[in-house]
Amino acid sequence: MTSYPITERTRVKRGHERANYDQEIVHAIIDEAYLCHVGAQMKDRPMVQPTFHWREGNKLYIHGSSKNALFKSLLDGVEACITITHLDGLVMARSSFHHSANYRSVMIFSKAKQIAPPEEKSRLLDLMMKKITPDRFDDIRSANEQELKATTVLEFSLQDVSAKIRTGPPVDDEEDYSLPVWAGVIPTTLEKGKPLDDPRWLDDHGDKSQEIK
Amino acid sequence: MTSYPITERTRVKRGHERANYDQEIVHAIIDEAYLCHVGAQMKDRPMVQPTFHWREGNKLYIHGSSKNALFKSLLDGVEACITITHLDGLVMARSSFHHSANYRSVMIFSKAKQIAPPEEKSRLLDLMMKKITPDRFDDIRSANEQELKATTVLEFSLQDVSAKIRTGPPVDDEEDYSLPVWAGVIPTTLEKGKPLDDPRWLDDHGDKSQEIK
Repeated sequence: MTSYPITERTRVKRGHERANYDQEIVHAIIDEAYLCHVGAQMKDRPMVQPTFHWREGNKLYIHGSSKNALFKSLLDGVEACITITHLDGLVMARSSFHHSANYRSVMIFSKAKQIAPPEEKSRLLDLMMKKITPDRFDDIRSANEQELKATTVLEFSLQDVSAKIRTGPPVDDEEDYSLPVWAGVIPTTLEKGKPLDDPRWLDDHGDKSQEIK
Repeated sequence: MTSYPITERTRVKRGHERANYDQEIVHAIIDEAYLCHVGAQMKDRPMVQPTFHWREGNKLYIHGSSKNALFKSLLDGVEACITITHLDGLVMARSSFHHSANYRSVMIFSKAKQIAPPEEKSRLLDLMMKKITPDRFDDIRSANEQELKATTVLEFSLQDVSAKIRTGPPVDDEEDYSLPVWAGVIPTTLEKGKPLDDPRWLDDHGDKSQEIK
């Protein structure tokens, strides 16, 4: 398996036994998530914004309004830390101290590069759409010139990147195993529910969401 | 309803129609989530870390190892931005541009205050346990002196705080409503699965998780 390099930025200091640098694993954690949290120091304050992300090869992309203040700071050359987290379970131990979470997270350090050519921006936004809604992609209207202009696409390099993963049952102190309290893991997952039709879709087309979506 | 003040820090600039400062709403978003993303500028890099959080009144708390590098920066007086995000749905529009997410997020700007007195630390960690596992709280072993020493509890003020919320169907350009593509919302929720017994619990007690948990 190909691994990302362990760099000064990405060497996991706390809980290093949970660190993982394998490319396939890092990419899978990124691809399964819709949301990342993008953090950077702005002029007058720190900022952590949730936003959609997508990936192509060793690049991560986000998009937003060209008026977004965080984006402006990133385009001024401020470094970002982008974190993606899946909460996979609540780890119920026998002692307060050993309670934990099962999770998979990825942390990326990178400066942003703006994607300027409209055709490349359009291609990348299409990639995002294919991630969000692969089955409907062919039928939705692509971004027009004006919409492309209003949208900033930022690229980040997956280079200073690491994953951190915890799985499995609680690990208690030996003397606590005899305590008469249940211990184990309560799994948590982001589940998709039944699609809700847009009321105006219903007006025009009736309830055909299952066929058409 | 009581509201948090709109401050220079918390006035939502982009998408201000989604902004919300109502205390009940802000608190509900915070309390429903297990994970927040804590961001701050460290000496040599920005940092965004996922961690458990809990709340009492107008204070938010996180805890971690006293050796955590981000915590050290926060204790040096660096301001944090803490963001909590619930992804509630994927908003499927008729055009690429109007795809969106339904979400509820809270953003907090605050410096950290360390909770020093062991008995106060212990009380606050118990509060966290009551959030994570209210039914098992009475039966788990509380933190002992050594565990308390190894744990740092940080307090943040809910003052420069705002919520941002999007709900409802897609909003498309009028001319796109006739496109023959399904539109609506795919709801997403963090669901809890069936509890998984710790193998060592099974050895000692058999499968009684449903009774005892």
